[in-house]
Amino acid sequence: MNSTRREFLARTGLAGTGLMAAGFLGTTPPAMAATPVAAKSGGGTRRQQFNMCGYGAPKLEKVRVGLIGVGSRGSGALPRLRAIEGVEITALCDLRPERIAAGLKALERTNHKPVTYSGTAEAWKEVCGRDDIDLIYNCTPWHLHAPISVYAMEHGKHAVSEIPAAVTIDECWQLVETAERTKKHYMMLENCCYDFFELLTLNLAQQGFFGEVVHGEGAYLHNLMELNFSKKGYHDMWRLKQNAARNGNLYPMHGLGPIAQIMNINRGDRMDYLVSVQSNDFQMGRKAEELAATDPFYSPYAGKHYRGNMNTTTVRTELGKTIMVQHDVTSTRPYSRIHTVVGTKATAQKWPSPARIATGHENWLSDAEMKKLEEKYTFDLVKQVGATARKVGGHGGMDFLMDWRLISQLRHGLPLDMDVYDAASWTSVGLLSEVSVANRSNSVDIPDFTGGSWRKNKPVDLTLKQPV
Amino acid sequence: MNSTRREFLARTGLAGTGLMAAGFLGTTPPAMAATPVAAKSGGGTRRQQFNMCGYGAPKLEKVRVGLIGVGSRGSGALPRLRAIEGVEITALCDLRPERIAAGLKALERTNHKPVTYSGTAEAWKEVCGRDDIDLIYNCTPWHLHAPISVYAMEHGKHAVSEIPAAVTIDECWQLVETAERTKKHYMMLENCCYDFFELLTLNLAQQGFFGEVVHGEGAYLHNLMELNFSKKGYHDMWRLKQNAARNGNLYPMHGLGPIAQIMNINRGDRMDYLVSVQSNDFQMGRKAEELAATDPFYSPYAGKHYRGNMNTTTVRTELGKTIMVQHDVTSTRPYSRIHTVVGTKATAQKWPSPARIATGHENWLSDAEMKKLEEKYTFDLVKQVGATARKVGGHGGMDFLMDWRLISQLRHGLPLDMDVYDAASWTSVGLLSEVSVANRSNSVDIPDFTGGSWRKNKPVDLTLKQPV
Repeated sequence: MNSTRREFLARTGLAGTGLMAAGFLGTTPPAMAATPVAAKSGGGTRRQQFNMCGYGAPKLEKVRVGLIGVGSRGSGALPRLRAIEGVEITALCDLRPERIAAGLKALERTNHKPVTYSGTAEAWKEVCGRDDIDLIYNCTPWHLHAPISVYAMEHGKHAVSEIPAAVTIDECWQLVETAERTKKHYMMLENCCYDFFELLTLNLAQQGFFGEVVHGEGAYLHNLMELNFSKKGYHDMWRLKQNAARNGNLYPMHGLGPIAQIMNINRGDRMDYLVSVQSNDFQMGRKAEELAATDPFYSPYAGKHYRGNMNTTTVRTELGKTIMVQHDVTSTRPYSRIHTVVGTKATAQKWPSPARIATGHENWLSDAEMKKLEEKYTFDLVKQVGATARKVGGHGGMDFLMDWRLISQLRHGLPLDMDVYDAASWTSVGLLSEVSVANRSNSVDIPDFTGGSWRKNKPVDLTLKQPV
Repeated sequence: MNSTRREFLARTGLAGTGLMAAGFLGTTPPAMAATPVAAKSGGGTRRQQFNMCGYGAPKLEKVRVGLIGVGSRGSGALPRLRAIEGVEITALCDLRPERIAAGLKALERTNHKPVTYSGTAEAWKEVCGRDDIDLIYNCTPWHLHAPISVYAMEHGKHAVSEIPAAVTIDECWQLVETAERTKKHYMMLENCCYDFFELLTLNLAQQGFFGEVVHGEGAYLHNLMELNFSKKGYHDMWRLKQNAARNGNLYPMHGLGPIAQIMNINRGDRMDYLVSVQSNDFQMGRKAEELAATDPFYSPYAGKHYRGNMNTTTVRTELGKTIMVQHDVTSTRPYSRIHTVVGTKATAQKWPSPARIATGHENWLSDAEMKKLEEKYTFDLVKQVGATARKVGGHGGMDFLMDWRLISQLRHGLPLDMDVYDAASWTSVGLLSEVSVANRSNSVDIPDFTGGSWRKNKPVDLTLKQPV
């Protein structure tokens, strides 16, 4: 056991506990199971060393990218990154050599000639140590997001990772403190903040269209039963294991992120506390039993206590607004992130489709009225990059918009739309939901990762300040 | 102060408190403000004296009705009651003589020749004391529902009232204990349980269509700003006063009732605890200030602390299901009771319109598939009485269906669809939400009003056992 890992276990109080001894988590580091222990710290704040909100790091003419993790999300990122001007992919890293081969194939007939790393679990450290990389783009499993991002910043790189930012509250703090100390960006790749209707509602909110925003709703209602139980899905069944080891709202960020931006969370308001209520499991345990009955591969997954299917988490903010965020990955509900914004003057709701807006309680706006609003309130960013985004794709274009914007802001030395405080606080809602669920849904304080600077931080600014 | 009132104040611990001294509640009895005190008892149960669930009282050939409260809801009830065979309206009672005149007008050219009572605040006691009445139909303001219903049962009458059943947890227990002791029905007139789509989903649930129902959602999102502030709205502005004196989910029953029936609450499962999160008020206080600025009538309403606009309450049941219930009467959201049912095999959601059903997570059913389901799963009750209900009306017909069913069950000596335990428990969710909101949204136990009989009580049975 190396010293970093030893320190980590000591810090989370997990060394030698039953969870480690059980060995169920297999090759997955124990961090993923540490949440209920580490998260108990709950609320609190600390003195800020340097305010990363609104901070633009020195301009980069070219952004040299090291991509770590070329699985599902990583291989999706390559076609997007190669389509963005000013990006040079200089390194690819994945535990599995075959994923490197697939990654290189995606870069054939381009100017990108990355060095490659694979075969060892800590190859990513060598990538972070290189001096021809500006940005570590991290698409590994959840439990590696924070360790790699922290290590990358320590080694002078900006770091972005897939969601969630971390799997313990302690890791959230590590991200914040490391970013402030190194003045390197950490951004969580919350692509849903760049979906078209979400962006429209953000601009509407910022132009005062909703009046005072009183309440918001988001969700991740997405049936992943087949994917989570598939042998060809997530490496080493890591996502299924998360659902067996934890009980809470594991994935609040897709629903919460866009609402948090609209409600100026960490930028004029902050999340104060949450309560979280979880149903029992009526689906995953049965599925595991069924599969194990005919296929011994699934035996280790039978008889486990899976997370309750449905989670409803409600947050109250310092200024007295509320946010409801749901999570269900076994749902028979058609896909939904809800995305409801309720203001004193108007309301929007994206799901169930079609997306709607109302300016009073009588009726939803007509298609023609919606079209007018879209014409008036679509961000220039979308007007200018949206068509390319739709063409290149990535969840309909939002992934490309996110990547394009990230690279553009780095090249122009401008602040990122989502900073390390957003990443930590959005992620913490999921982690603290587990604490609430484990304590008869009692309320849990949400830490102030901004160290009080939320009072003066400016709202996210998506206006284009640079030529496209 | 009479002895009943004195006892009541002693029981709720409110005698001589600031809320009484303030006098803001005016002519409205203090019970409405007693909730936060009285409700603190929270959970608990007691030994059942007699099980009213599934109990059919002796048949009544004719149901003689005394209607108390001929305001908005009471005057709406008259055209429905007069259209139902076997009903005789024998008494009308309202504080205001002009409401009696309006009531009599609605009964012109019918065989109903009620005696009338008005002019004194306790005239309803005389009505309850008569011997030509079987059923007290109570459409008074919220704070009079339980006192009148309890008094009616004590005087040998069945009692039904508008929602909520009560304004304190103590009153909920009084209703339960009085019904059990007197073997008289008390039913809360939760009309939304008889709306057409809600009934369809109840039958679908009972036929196993949803599989195991894991989660349900209901709401009362209904903008009442104009009505609550109107001088011509609720008598003595009682509803506005409720919004100034209490902070919680004041009206959960419309959303909760249909979900509770579908989830067999009190009949195989029970509500275990709830958490409730409330936003601040951003609307009612401002409105009161604006009105008071030009009209001294509104001066007493300015500067008050109004209930937060948006409430989200989440319940967990004994069997590990969850229910979310929202309340907002200042919302810019178009009207919604949500009515979402999420099962392991299928999902339904009524709002935002159109109502939808999905049998998997891929798509909502088409109109043609919906039509087939409706043909197969519509209750006989609706098939046989629905057309008349739509014609006579009352919120599109559901009010008539409810009244028709009530009278029919009484005449056939069959159990009512909603019993006193349903009334008490559905109502308690609103009262206990106030306790949770006042305690940083911590969880509050929900009493078991059935005294443990929920384990063996049978689900509500809406099949027709009598000729129409």
